[in-house]
Order: sequence, then structure tokens, then C-alpha cells
Amino acid sequence: MPQKLTLKKIAQDLKVSISTVSKALRDSHEISVETRDKIKDYAKKYNYKPNNIALSLKNQKTKKIGVIIPEIVHHFFATVISGIEKVANDKGYQVIICLSGESFDKEVVNMDMLANGSIDGFIMSLSKETLERQDYHHLREVLNQGMPIVMFDRAVEGIPCDKIIIDDVAAAQSATEFLLRKGKSKLAIISTVDYVNVGRLRTQGFKEALLKRGIEVSDKDVLKIEDTENSTTIIENFLKDTDYDGIIAVNELFAVTASKALQKLGKSIPDDASIIAFTDGMLSKYASPTLTTIGQKGEDMGGLAAAKLIERLEAPQTIEESYETVIVKTSLVERESTP
Amino acid sequence: MPQKLTLKKIAQDLKVSISTVSKALRDSHEISVETRDKIKDYAKKYNYKPNNIALSLKNQKTKKIGVIIPEIVHHFFATVISGIEKVANDKGYQVIICLSGESFDKEVVNMDMLANGSIDGFIMSLSKETLERQDYHHLREVLNQGMPIVMFDRAVEGIPCDKIIIDDVAAAQSATEFLLRKGKSKLAIISTVDYVNVGRLRTQGFKEALLKRGIEVSDKDVLKIEDTENSTTIIENFLKDTDYDGIIAVNELFAVTASKALQKLGKSIPDDASIIAFTDGMLSKYASPTLTTIGQKGEDMGGLAAAKLIERLEAPQTIEESYETVIVKTSLVERESTP
Repeated sequence: MPQKLTLKKIAQDLKVSISTVSKALRDSHEISVETRDKIKDYAKKYNYKPNNIALSLKNQKTKKIGVIIPEIVHHFFATVISGIEKVANDKGYQVIICLSGESFDKEVVNMDMLANGSIDGFIMSLSKETLERQDYHHLREVLNQGMPIVMFDRAVEGIPCDKIIIDDVAAAQSATEFLLRKGKSKLAIISTVDYVNVGRLRTQGFKEALLKRGIEVSDKDVLKIEDTENSTTIIENFLKDTDYDGIIAVNELFAVTASKALQKLGKSIPDDASIIAFTDGMLSKYASPTLTTIGQKGEDMGGLAAAKLIERLEAPQTIEESYETVIVKTSLVERESTP
Repeated sequence: MPQKLTLKKIAQDLKVSISTVSKALRDSHEISVETRDKIKDYAKKYNYKPNNIALSLKNQKTKKIGVIIPEIVHHFFATVISGIEKVANDKGYQVIICLSGESFDKEVVNMDMLANGSIDGFIMSLSKETLERQDYHHLREVLNQGMPIVMFDRAVEGIPCDKIIIDDVAAAQSATEFLLRKGKSKLAIISTVDYVNVGRLRTQGFKEALLKRGIEVSDKDVLKIEDTENSTTIIENFLKDTDYDGIIAVNELFAVTASKALQKLGKSIPDDASIIAFTDGMLSKYASPTLTTIGQKGEDMGGLAAAKLIERLEAPQTIEESYETVIVKTSLVERESTP
């Protein structure tokens, strides 16, 4: 049985990156003419066919939606999928999920696979590596061929597509103000590295709220975690020998880890230190004490993303293009970790 | 643009169930000749094409694996997916995930969609509704056409395919014996309804371990939860006015709920009552007290399932058929909820 030639296979055979193959086949000027020709000749020789989306779209709709997310262990993404499934199924669409595993190459390969006639459009949240590289050629390619994309949560500027996001800056601001109103004054934020835009924006909101109240913010009050595997040790070391009385964490895993670390240090929650987490998931509900959270409304976001994509798929074609960014309102869910 | 005729659409148009359409198109004797003819005529008229798996397999491999799972909110399924992704990616396969949402119809529809040339083989865990109906025609159909399936966790007897399971009876027995050795004697199990085989088998192991020690087991010591949405209230009511000193729960959500309910009743854990949960996930690690669990090795199970499927996909065809059931060893992860 002949094996189908894939982007990955071409990359391996020619010892170049998947991204290079993907771009060369689309005549990207980022790739030298020499390399482009080499890759295109190879692809032609072995009969590789890049996406024929425009063609397949003209002929027939698949009534399928492709979803590409970084991972499914985070409760947030699981709730988004639930929201997508509900709306999509109601409207007669099936949902196919692929994981990028936070890898740029996997995102490119999965997108290429699904765009190849399997689905009508994408709902996606970008991988950390894609955000770090700021390489979005795979999104542009799919869009250029007339296949719509809706981005959610980890969305970026400058891509012509609809987006479903929360106002991360405002949400972090209001969480910070909430802690200040409760009498807390020595605050810290546990965040991600800056290229993960939601982490950067939440940190920005935290700083802005403090500055507005005339409270100085030092870089040492911001913990940026890259190595999530070792987040427990990193958070424990960060909190040791500090007197923070309020912590905001950009996800519930960091929040519950901080809560345990503070309790281990003999602090009582919420009296000695209060905690607010982004993402209202299982961990927050079942932690002891239960955690006050900023509900990201994952199910709502998923439902809105699916509705938006289907609306675009079923709309008559227009010459003008306009894209919408929907900002989903967050809400503070008060529990035991704040007074 | 013409819309592709699907199983679901035919079912809606003819006002019959998806299962009836699926069976009729495969000439099942469960469906009357009259209904079969009606459905087949309609499908023919509108040019519906059922799976052409055998044909597509002969021509070309897709190097893709289809995974159908009931849901992704449970940590266990998320870890299985991680294991599948790792092994599959290593061997050059891509993974496509679809959710049944515990619905028989969605399982049938998703399987039909993926089997239609998108993938080479399936890894799946059955929906609750499929287990309740004991209707496996969609599995048999795919297998008959030469496409392999590997079932994991929620697997059933009598389907000619490889299975990756844990020994639920033995695991529950050893958890029960562990509690007895720790001096606990008034034990209860929080389980699912019987048609979910893992719940039934774990309950069986619990009862057998007690009987072996000459301890009588009453039905009132077994809580079978069907309505998971309201599990908190159900578990609180179950534990009220009892003096159980040991609880085994078939998943970590039930276990952490029981832990909270017991603490609310003024009981100290592990002294007044000890708890053991199936599934070693996030909730167990972050609960207070942390929970002793039976590690189900989700990642190992996923990896084994992927390896088994790929082995079968890449093996030369043989005339004999033999299928393997791999039993993954569980292990007790001791934490604070047991002495």
C-alpha cells in the first residue's frame, strides 16, 4: 500500500522544517527560490496535493467543524468544547477535534490535514509555540482559500477572522480592585511568560489597577512561569519569605498550588492571604478552601464561536469583508478564598 | 451548494432513528424488509454513499487514527488522549478526536463519518447509552469492512477486537482489603448504575473482598448514581446518619464529594472515615485532604491502545484472527485520605 505523502514526510525526506515545506508549497517569499523549487519538484514528483479547499467548498459542504486546541487537560478547553458541541450539533454540524499539544508543527500539520476537504471551517486557540514564533502563515493560507476561522481565547491581532475573547485586562483589573476593596494591599500575580497573550494581558490589568490606586508595582511581584511541569516548586519558592496578602493566578492550577503553599507556610486563607483564580473549573470548586474565581464562561465562548462560524458558513457570499471580535463578559464567583 | 446526505438527515426525513437507518443500509435483519427498502430507496435516490472503507483501505493509508470517547471533562480520558498522541505521533500518525457525549446516536454518527475514508482505525471507549442498549452494530460493521478497533476502559465482551482494560474487580478488591487492613470495618462504595461495566465490576470486587472476610454486604452499602448532575446532593443524603468508616468511590469526583460531605458532618479524615478513589487525577492531588487513589494509568492505557492499533494496521494480513486483551496493572497511590 502506498503511503500518502504528507507535509511531515516531505520535511523529513528533504531535511527541512514542516513550516518551510508548508510555506514553499504556497510560494511564500520567506523561502528562497532554490528551496521552494526543490520542495515543489519533490511534491510534484510524488504527487503531493496541497489543500484544494476552494474547489471542495464550491462543490459540497461537509457540515463538519474542525477544532484545534492546545490541550484538553485544562478544564477551560473542555468546557469550550462542550459549548461548541452543543451549538454545532443543534445546527446539524459534527465536530472534529485535534490537539496541537502547544506545538507549532503539530498545529500546522493538523490544520493542513483537516483543511484538506474534511471540514468547512475552523475554531481554534493558538499553541504557545505559535504565539512565541508569531508565525501565522497556516492561518492566512486557509483564510485565503476561503475557509473561515474563528479564534477564541488565545487569539491574535491582524488575522482577518472573527474572535471570541474575554477582556483579560479588565478582568484582571476588577479582580485586583476586589482584593484592594477587601483591605488587601500587598499583592502578587502568578502568570505565564509574556508571549502567551492572556498571561501578558492579565498581568497588565493587575499592574494598571494597582497604579491607578497609587500603589507601586515591582517586577518581583510578578511571577512568570514557563516551566509548568515544575510549577509547584517554582510557586513555593516564590512565596517563601514574602508577606503577600493577596494573590491573583492566571489559571486555577497555579491558584490551588499557591493556596497549598501558603497553608504549608502556616498562613490562613482568606485572612492572612486571599486568592483569586482565572478559570472557574473543578479544581476551584473542590479545593479547600474553595477558590474565588473569574469565570471565563468557556461554554458560552464555545457556543458563540460555533454560532459565529456557522453563520459565516451559511451566509451568502459578499464582496465586503468585516470581522467581529466578541468580548465575553467575565464574572467574579466568590468563594472561601476571599473574605 | 448541495448538502451532503447524512445518516442523521435520512433519519430526520424519514422519521426513524439513526440506528434504524444505519442498520437498514447494512441489510440488518433487525429491521423489517419494508423499512429497509424504504430507507435504501431514499438513500439511493439522493445518492447517499455508505462507508467505502474496504475500498479506501486497499488504495491508500491515511496515517490517521480516530478516537471516540464519551467526554473530555474527566481527567482520565484526557490522560488517555495524551498517551495516544505520544505513541501515534512518534510513529507518524495523526489523531482525530470525536466525542459521543455519552450518546449512542452521536457515537454511531461520528463513527460513520470517520470510517468514511478519514482514518485507518479506531480507538474507543463506549458511551453509557451504547452500554445500556447493548447495541454494537456500528462496531461490527466497521470491523467487518476490515478496519481495526481497539477498545479501552469501557470495553465489552464479544466484539472481535483488541482491548486495553484494567482488572476492575481485582483493583476494587485490593482497595477494599487495604481499608480492612487499616482497621476499617464499616465500608460503603459509591458507584455508577450497573450497565456501566466499570462501575458494576468495581462493585463486584468490593463485595467479593468483604465476603471473603466473612463480612456481610447489604445493598444499602452500595450507592449507584445515575444522575451525575446531582451527585453532590445524592452523596450527602447517602452519608447522612451513617457510620461508615471507609468509602470507595469509582471516580475521583464522587470521592472528593464524599470527602467534603463527611467533613461537613463533622467527621475527620482519615481517622473517622477513610476514602479511596479510582482515577489518579488533578482533583485527588489537590483536594484537602489529598486522596488515596487507584491509579488507572490513563497515559499507559492510551499508549498501549495506539501501539496495538498501529501494530495491527501495519501487520501483513493473516487468515487467522486472534485478539488480545491487555490488562494494565493498577497501583494504590497512598495519600492523606487513608491512615
